[in-house]
Amino acid sequence: MMQAELLSIGDELLIGQVVNTNAVFLSKALNSIGIEVVQISCISDQKEAIIEALDESKKRAQIILLTGGLGPTKDDITKHTLCVYFNDILVENQEIKTHIEHIFSSYVTTPINQENRKQALLPSKARILKNEHGTASGMWFEKDNQVIIALPGVPFEMKALVNNHVLPALKEKYTLPYIKHITIQTYGLGESAIAERLIHWENELPRGLKFAYLPNFGKVRLRLSGKDFNSIELTERMEAEIDKLIPIIKDIYVGRDEDSIEQIVHRKFIQKKATLSLAESCTGGQIATLLTSIPGASAYFKGGVVAYHTQSKIDLLSVPKRLIDQHSVVSQPVAEAMAKNVQKHYHTDYAIATTGNAGPTKGDADAEIGTVWIAVASKSKVISEKFVFGNHRERVIHKAVQKALELVLQHLK
Amino acid sequence: MMQAELLSIGDELLIGQVVNTNAVFLSKALNSIGIEVVQISCISDQKEAIIEALDESKKRAQIILLTGGLGPTKDDITKHTLCVYFNDILVENQEIKTHIEHIFSSYVTTPINQENRKQALLPSKARILKNEHGTASGMWFEKDNQVIIALPGVPFEMKALVNNHVLPALKEKYTLPYIKHITIQTYGLGESAIAERLIHWENELPRGLKFAYLPNFGKVRLRLSGKDFNSIELTERMEAEIDKLIPIIKDIYVGRDEDSIEQIVHRKFIQKKATLSLAESCTGGQIATLLTSIPGASAYFKGGVVAYHTQSKIDLLSVPKRLIDQHSVVSQPVAEAMAKNVQKHYHTDYAIATTGNAGPTKGDADAEIGTVWIAVASKSKVISEKFVFGNHRERVIHKAVQKALELVLQHLK
Repeated sequence: MMQAELLSIGDELLIGQVVNTNAVFLSKALNSIGIEVVQISCISDQKEAIIEALDESKKRAQIILLTGGLGPTKDDITKHTLCVYFNDILVENQEIKTHIEHIFSSYVTTPINQENRKQALLPSKARILKNEHGTASGMWFEKDNQVIIALPGVPFEMKALVNNHVLPALKEKYTLPYIKHITIQTYGLGESAIAERLIHWENELPRGLKFAYLPNFGKVRLRLSGKDFNSIELTERMEAEIDKLIPIIKDIYVGRDEDSIEQIVHRKFIQKKATLSLAESCTGGQIATLLTSIPGASAYFKGGVVAYHTQSKIDLLSVPKRLIDQHSVVSQPVAEAMAKNVQKHYHTDYAIATTGNAGPTKGDADAEIGTVWIAVASKSKVISEKFVFGNHRERVIHKAVQKALELVLQHLK
Repeated sequence: MMQAELLSIGDELLIGQVVNTNAVFLSKALNSIGIEVVQISCISDQKEAIIEALDESKKRAQIILLTGGLGPTKDDITKHTLCVYFNDILVENQEIKTHIEHIFSSYVTTPINQENRKQALLPSKARILKNEHGTASGMWFEKDNQVIIALPGVPFEMKALVNNHVLPALKEKYTLPYIKHITIQTYGLGESAIAERLIHWENELPRGLKFAYLPNFGKVRLRLSGKDFNSIELTERMEAEIDKLIPIIKDIYVGRDEDSIEQIVHRKFIQKKATLSLAESCTGGQIATLLTSIPGASAYFKGGVVAYHTQSKIDLLSVPKRLIDQHSVVSQPVAEAMAKNVQKHYHTDYAIATTGNAGPTKGDADAEIGTVWIAVASKSKVISEKFVFGNHRERVIHKAVQKALELVLQHLK
């Protein structure tokens, strides 16, 4: 079993200025090719800290992935530190020099300077991984049966390097097992109550399978993990356990969650050749943002109206003013009128509308904070449902977005 | 100088299932009382991993903050591991037992079970920190001049424990210095070009002040950090350096502090009592999402149209079809027509429109992938600008959102 450690370098992580999303991407990417991540460490951009972390990682992992500290400025010291660590020197790499000059002449408005050119000075012992999107190259070192890979910290540069260079090279170098996680969503029971039901099932789990509880906001996700060189056998073994698990939690079982809900919506609408439009009030464009985050969304998603202010529901969505006056802006008739009108305006098969009050203050609505009406219109009918999501603004919006997509999926079936 | 290390425990971090936002909160919280975080480590919920990490942390930090693994289920082993580490035993804590029973009788619909009751079994050598929002208590250990604090991983439970118990106790125990960060936002110059200008200034920086460059999507943030027991003197010393810095970067200086551009837009529009609407194409609702992420946005943000599909620009925004046929959908006349029409429809003082091609394929437009036209309309005029943001979808959208907000700010001045 190959084990990896991630070293994220940068004081911005240690003072809480940025969230370490790179680690999330890297962990998933490594897991996907059968490499287990055993530790993630964020450390300061100081030579001693980097060298100490590299030394410590030796006893835990055969693969070390460093990110950050490869920029052209004085506080970027990863490259120099790796030269010290590997007793190496910097040499100019012609191909990278040409690449950097090309980037500057094509995309960058400021002229190239000495510091930019120095980005082509690279350790002689490293295999250089060309960064298509930037001037900081990736570096691949090998020493004492350990692979040490340094990557830039800028997320999209790092991601492209990992997908195009790092993963293929690791797969070539090692015979890797298959790592599989199955996550089950449950709703309505606390983790210890679930655990009580599962005592027997958990005790009988075959060796090599690991089970975990992930509670969050009233939902508990259950995760079964395993790894094996034989992916078919592993999958069968795990699915057999899941088949025993489901009947025990039938009443609280929501589903399996490999896919995000927006991916499911995307796939289903394209499969059914159906089209969708949106009228968003309290969700403020977040449903549109989620849907358009997936390339190719224009195949089914025609567009939407963000009718944030009450008046815009009248102006843009032709919701009759008397309907709002009579029932309030957060109401079933308003949600349904929004959905019907946007569906007609955009000539789509389906439309979703949200109207609610996410707080922290009551706004134009009488409705209690956290109340959201969601309506889904098709050519033949409109359905709608009321939700009360509590008084935490972000959570209310998040839940409304999720619920809206769940409703349209139900309706599509 | 007190140094802390964070140990985040849980396999969900190592497989990329959750982002370590707890570390962001804890780093900021510790910095705010003068404690420096020197390392953040995410480790597996396995006894050996926890003990090894505690041992390693000894040489780096006097304060260790563990989060996670304090739940009632089998995969939660932090409490038992700490008993092993400190050679301690579990004893029932009466106050916590009553507290757990109270939580179950007041808020929880499922009946209390044996596992929940066991949450009152706590290490005898620890000072117990009562968790108002849950059943997993915090624990404070001291050994060999090190303080080791274990906290639950559920964010809102952890945060309340930190604010109410951990920070006050650390402030009482130690005489702590003052840590200060000043962040400057710049726009329009790459980090190495800025560094070139600042060579002299950086070389002259007094000892004890640290300077860093944080590039992200065409913006570079500059951060000056310092610490001292005398907060007034430190502030004066840092401000003197900032006073020397600003004139050197006057042309690219955007502002100080950590305000996001959406916060600046929010504040400026409310100050000026101006209103805003949006016509988003390639940005797919992301501008609306950003603006409405700030409570109270309806005071100036009236709403927007997400015209993702070409036809919806005609239907919803009354963009003449001949304009699209003649100039293509990604063009200056189309962007300007979108901005003008949405500004009229929504009766707002300003409107922003985006139309572009984020890729990965060309879609309905002839324009090169990465081309975005942004227009800003006011009652008196329309301005527009063309951008080419490269061929990375996420980045194109992100940059278009940022640029659109920058343009409207310029226009508002």
